[in-house]
Amino acid sequence: MSERGLLIVLSGPSGVGKGTVRKAIFESDDNDFQYSISMTTRPMREGEVDGVDYYFRTREEFEELIEAGQMLEYAEYVGNYYGTPLSYVDKTLDEGKDVFLEIEVQGARQVKEKVPDGVFIFLTPPDLQELKSRIVGRGTDAAEIIEERMKVAREEIEMMALYDYAVVNDEVPLAVERIKDIIASEHFRVDRVIGKYIKMLKEM
Amino acid sequence: MSERGLLIVLSGPSGVGKGTVRKAIFESDDNDFQYSISMTTRPMREGEVDGVDYYFRTREEFEELIEAGQMLEYAEYVGNYYGTPLSYVDKTLDEGKDVFLEIEVQGARQVKEKVPDGVFIFLTPPDLQELKSRIVGRGTDAAEIIEERMKVAREEIEMMALYDYAVVNDEVPLAVERIKDIIASEHFRVDRVIGKYIKMLKEM
Repeated sequence: MSERGLLIVLSGPSGVGKGTVRKAIFESDDNDFQYSISMTTRPMREGEVDGVDYYFRTREEFEELIEAGQMLEYAEYVGNYYGTPLSYVDKTLDEGKDVFLEIEVQGARQVKEKVPDGVFIFLTPPDLQELKSRIVGRGTDAAEIIEERMKVAREEIEMMALYDYAVVNDEVPLAVERIKDIIASEHFRVDRVIGKYIKMLKEM
Repeated sequence: MSERGLLIVLSGPSGVGKGTVRKAIFESDDNDFQYSISMTTRPMREGEVDGVDYYFRTREEFEELIEAGQMLEYAEYVGNYYGTPLSYVDKTLDEGKDVFLEIEVQGARQVKEKVPDGVFIFLTPPDLQELKSRIVGRGTDAAEIIEERMKVAREEIEMMALYDYAVVNDEVPLAVERIKDIIASEHFRVDRVIGKYIKMLKEM
């Protein structure tokens, strides 16, 4: 099958465990995704390898790629750029392989604008009951602290609305299975497969 | 969780094996769907039980339900009505359980109009290569026979466009797994879960 691969974007609030879940997915059996290596301008640390841990580039090189529209998404943290180069993602999708990105919510928002037919998965903190307890605390917290937590929860739910799926990260192996089910199912979506049927009929 | 259940509709061209796949799903482990029993006006056959095989009703009773808008879908075959009563489906979805319908494409079209947020799965004949061979035959068929097969294939693909997913029925256990993955994943769709988060925040 020569259909284009799926772009899978895993994101979620910071601290929710995106990195752990992503690692577990890539270590699991029958995973068949290509992991997109990020690019950064931060200095290489001891033991890191260019093209393995990150693509290490100068600030000038990175900014040239931004200006040329060659970054799928990027952000600046503490003075350094981090981002996903478009070329690798595009080439891999064209080869019919699925590409998996694990990125911050700001980056996911940029990807959503550029690749609306990607599969956007929001990893959520524990379920509703736990979220509620987390907000209320032990019942001894000051009103402004509870108010602040509610604000954060509200923002997270607003973020969630941009995604296709919300997966609870209660236990990593469960979250991994859910995400793999979602990716498998997305390959059967009619809007993704009907094109090749129509093409075949036209060619006959 | 008191969220409403999913309405799952399995359909597809006649002869594709819908009944076999549906039976295999209900006989499989960890299936958690309610099967909606159809209603019919055809006479009960020996060994059949009212409320198990079908709800057996008179023509008058069936037509009253149609007029009262109490049939989710129905059709007439060789002088008898067959259809899905709305009341059971609605009640079961309200209880938070998923309801599984295996129906003909005409019925699926009616359900799609009434319950657009159902999960519509189209079971397809073998994959593209096999579909192609089926159309071309052994290369010895008359042009009009091939033309007729192409017409049927084109109609099937047009039907498919109304569905959310297209699942190839190459091997029944594989089709069953795909359908179960799809149903699991649909429970994680943001538009299905975000409501309860918003509700919780409002209630706090």
